[in-house]
Amino acid sequence: MSERDFHALFYPKTVVIQEAKEKIAFFIKGFKRQGFPLENLYLINSREQNLLGLKCYPSIDEIPIETIDYLIFAIRREKTIDSLNEILSKKKVKFIHIFTAGMGEADEIGSQIEKEIKNLLDKYPKTRAIGPNCMGVYCPRGKNAYYSSFPVESGTIGLIFQSGDLHSRMIKFGSRLYGLRFAKGISIGNTVDLQVSEFLEYFNEDPEIEIICVYFEGFSPLHEKEPKRFLETVKKVKKPVLFMRGGRTKRAQTAIISHTGTLASSQKIWSAIYKQTPLLEIPPSLEDLLDTTYMFKNYISRFKNGKNILFPQNKRVLIVLWSGGFGILATDTLTELGFKIPQFKKKALDELKKIYPLKIGSLSNPLDMPWITSKKAFVDITIKALEQGIDFLIIETDAWRNMEGEEFKNYYNNLKKIKEHVESSNKVFSIVLHQYPSSSREKFYSMLIKDNFLVYSTIERAARAFLKLLEYGKKVEKFT
Amino acid sequence: MSERDFHALFYPKTVVIQEAKEKIAFFIKGFKRQGFPLENLYLINSREQNLLGLKCYPSIDEIPIETIDYLIFAIRREKTIDSLNEILSKKKVKFIHIFTAGMGEADEIGSQIEKEIKNLLDKYPKTRAIGPNCMGVYCPRGKNAYYSSFPVESGTIGLIFQSGDLHSRMIKFGSRLYGLRFAKGISIGNTVDLQVSEFLEYFNEDPEIEIICVYFEGFSPLHEKEPKRFLETVKKVKKPVLFMRGGRTKRAQTAIISHTGTLASSQKIWSAIYKQTPLLEIPPSLEDLLDTTYMFKNYISRFKNGKNILFPQNKRVLIVLWSGGFGILATDTLTELGFKIPQFKKKALDELKKIYPLKIGSLSNPLDMPWITSKKAFVDITIKALEQGIDFLIIETDAWRNMEGEEFKNYYNNLKKIKEHVESSNKVFSIVLHQYPSSSREKFYSMLIKDNFLVYSTIERAARAFLKLLEYGKKVEKFT
Repeated sequence: MSERDFHALFYPKTVVIQEAKEKIAFFIKGFKRQGFPLENLYLINSREQNLLGLKCYPSIDEIPIETIDYLIFAIRREKTIDSLNEILSKKKVKFIHIFTAGMGEADEIGSQIEKEIKNLLDKYPKTRAIGPNCMGVYCPRGKNAYYSSFPVESGTIGLIFQSGDLHSRMIKFGSRLYGLRFAKGISIGNTVDLQVSEFLEYFNEDPEIEIICVYFEGFSPLHEKEPKRFLETVKKVKKPVLFMRGGRTKRAQTAIISHTGTLASSQKIWSAIYKQTPLLEIPPSLEDLLDTTYMFKNYISRFKNGKNILFPQNKRVLIVLWSGGFGILATDTLTELGFKIPQFKKKALDELKKIYPLKIGSLSNPLDMPWITSKKAFVDITIKALEQGIDFLIIETDAWRNMEGEEFKNYYNNLKKIKEHVESSNKVFSIVLHQYPSSSREKFYSMLIKDNFLVYSTIERAARAFLKLLEYGKKVEKFT
Repeated sequence: MSERDFHALFYPKTVVIQEAKEKIAFFIKGFKRQGFPLENLYLINSREQNLLGLKCYPSIDEIPIETIDYLIFAIRREKTIDSLNEILSKKKVKFIHIFTAGMGEADEIGSQIEKEIKNLLDKYPKTRAIGPNCMGVYCPRGKNAYYSSFPVESGTIGLIFQSGDLHSRMIKFGSRLYGLRFAKGISIGNTVDLQVSEFLEYFNEDPEIEIICVYFEGFSPLHEKEPKRFLETVKKVKKPVLFMRGGRTKRAQTAIISHTGTLASSQKIWSAIYKQTPLLEIPPSLEDLLDTTYMFKNYISRFKNGKNILFPQNKRVLIVLWSGGFGILATDTLTELGFKIPQFKKKALDELKKIYPLKIGSLSNPLDMPWITSKKAFVDITIKALEQGIDFLIIETDAWRNMEGEEFKNYYNNLKKIKEHVESSNKVFSIVLHQYPSSSREKFYSMLIKDNFLVYSTIERAARAFLKLLEYGKKVEKFT
């Protein structure tokens, strides 16, 4: 097995769960939901005959296979070493997911157990492990998932997370909020064996993955060489790496000790890393990571295989809406975020007026166009205005009560035409649809997501995500 | 009529709409929805016999009343002066809502018409007007609303908005997202006659109003004395005024010219005003205004008639969740926003451990308490931890798939007990429930809102709103 061959981890032929109990039945449900062949899923439980209709084997000895591709290991920490010793002496195991928590993040005893795990694994170089204190693998093409709520469809996003819960929520929220789909995801916890850099290298070469998201807390104290290897790896990565680091503040670094027990490092060091590598810093907020991933996924999907991407170069924005007040607020918000909102010269204004002599509203940027959203002029004016040196188009809108009528249909077709026009360039088009409970809002939102519009709930969220795309474009120029 | 008697505006006995057309039928629907007695609603339309089942009068002469409390005036600008002249010479009108747009915000001709309106009104001192270029009045107790989507229930919030659309959305989004209810709202547009300061004075004395929200763009060029009067008024206001100003940036000030045509002023002047008065500056984002209003409303509702309010004094936060990763992110986010996240001393930690000897997770702040959310220990630990000098409690949670089972019911009761405990102090308790489309999430969210929990969709939004409450508390100390 080559060092970076993680195939059996993501696409296992045989899976064993030791000890398979009701409390962790979600693992079994995850495999079931993905359509994993259940005859290749072996449960070990010394007390129960079966679980969720699947046979339980009383011990590892009874499992009728020699090679285990993927072992989910959930034995309490006191028994971890003995149990692992036994399994590894009896079976050939390619990958172990050590689910057990209460290790290095808990206390000195836990740290000692981690050392012993590492020593044990050193004796079995063909066996690699993720964890402890992690949720494991998600790979829909490998029919491999630990929650039944994860989508069965595959995508182009890869996740490397040092928090199982954030990993799960990235998949859950991302798929439901923005229709995101993932190629591979891995929750790796305290990283006693397999390191972030190894997955980064693997994902960088994985043709299914176009965008890599990382949630990082710290380096394992057992792997002194990892920081250097990590740095070398990120310098070479050819795909966008959206890097969210927990521990930007000293206070959070203290908290990390009781979460993954890894070595947090100062923001100063990381600021230097962000400057010297294509790594893209994401603020410590899952919403920011979701918003940015969505922006990248939506933009990159225009380019075949995510290759030869031309990124937007500037931050000149055109705002289109039906609300003078929102136009003013958007202008303030975007200006304060560093955007330019070009004012149209007389010649351009005259051209816009020629298309439609708007009496109420405004044809200067922001375009406030009441009453004409369903007319052809809405498209023509927007496209003409886009010629005035624009990188980012925001159309701010609201739900429609009547979505069956001609007016809505024409409006929706207008949005589609504008989308098509924008996607033939390296401009970005985002719709802002404010969030509030409403069935018509929900229906409109779902339509937009399904049709691959880029929809955010606030101007600020759309703008922040765009700025990250721009920042990455500049990094690409500089580093690759 | 005393200068500040706006009773007939908010609680009109007689309403006339001139010219009542299909395009503005929303006005009629608004009155209908609120239960306004339709026999007191008079429509003028020279071409149609009726509209939405209501009789139309061919002209003002046919209207069988002498006094009009509230006239909604929607005649195109060219005919505005003649038409107003005719009406005022024939009827006694208390308040006119000049809906007509395309005035001072449009061009020089529009500005000229505004001057003529003012000159005309000066001849009728008993007639006051809002607008032009505005949506008008919302007052559920007066059965007065311009959209049928506005709630019929009254509340404690007052709105003074220089944008009709923002005014409408504040009511729509606020009621649906946070269950907010409003006592009175007014969209006043270009302020040719009635000024922001006059409504501020009125709302300050209105016993139904506890919180005042203002969206401000600029002073009318026709009212030189208004800036001074405004400043004097805000110095005296005894209620929280959440003040969102469009035009913080020069670029937005340019856009204001084509929105309300009022005189925008520099952020420097306003920074000085915020320092010298209890006015609370809200960033240029409707979400920020909604979030802050909700925080104030929720907090103030603990105090009878919104009087003798004790505000929180510090920003020490306790985070409770079931997710190590989110705990780290929350710690970073809150620390970067200036919050303190007290670390518990050994004695306190021992006391918490005595309540429940948690093996997985963490009993130091953030409290990461897996598996025990439905146990009594969850409440006991939280309340004990609150004793460690805490001002703001955030419980971060997610939707429950099974909301019928005992586990959820116990959890929900736990949240209620914690809420009750917190509300006996001047601490604040917010739940963070991330937003994504999901029926169980929606159901849980509705329950929480109905039961007056304070729920935000992100840590950051909760935190920003809390900081405004804190800031206002310090202003109260300083100015009142």
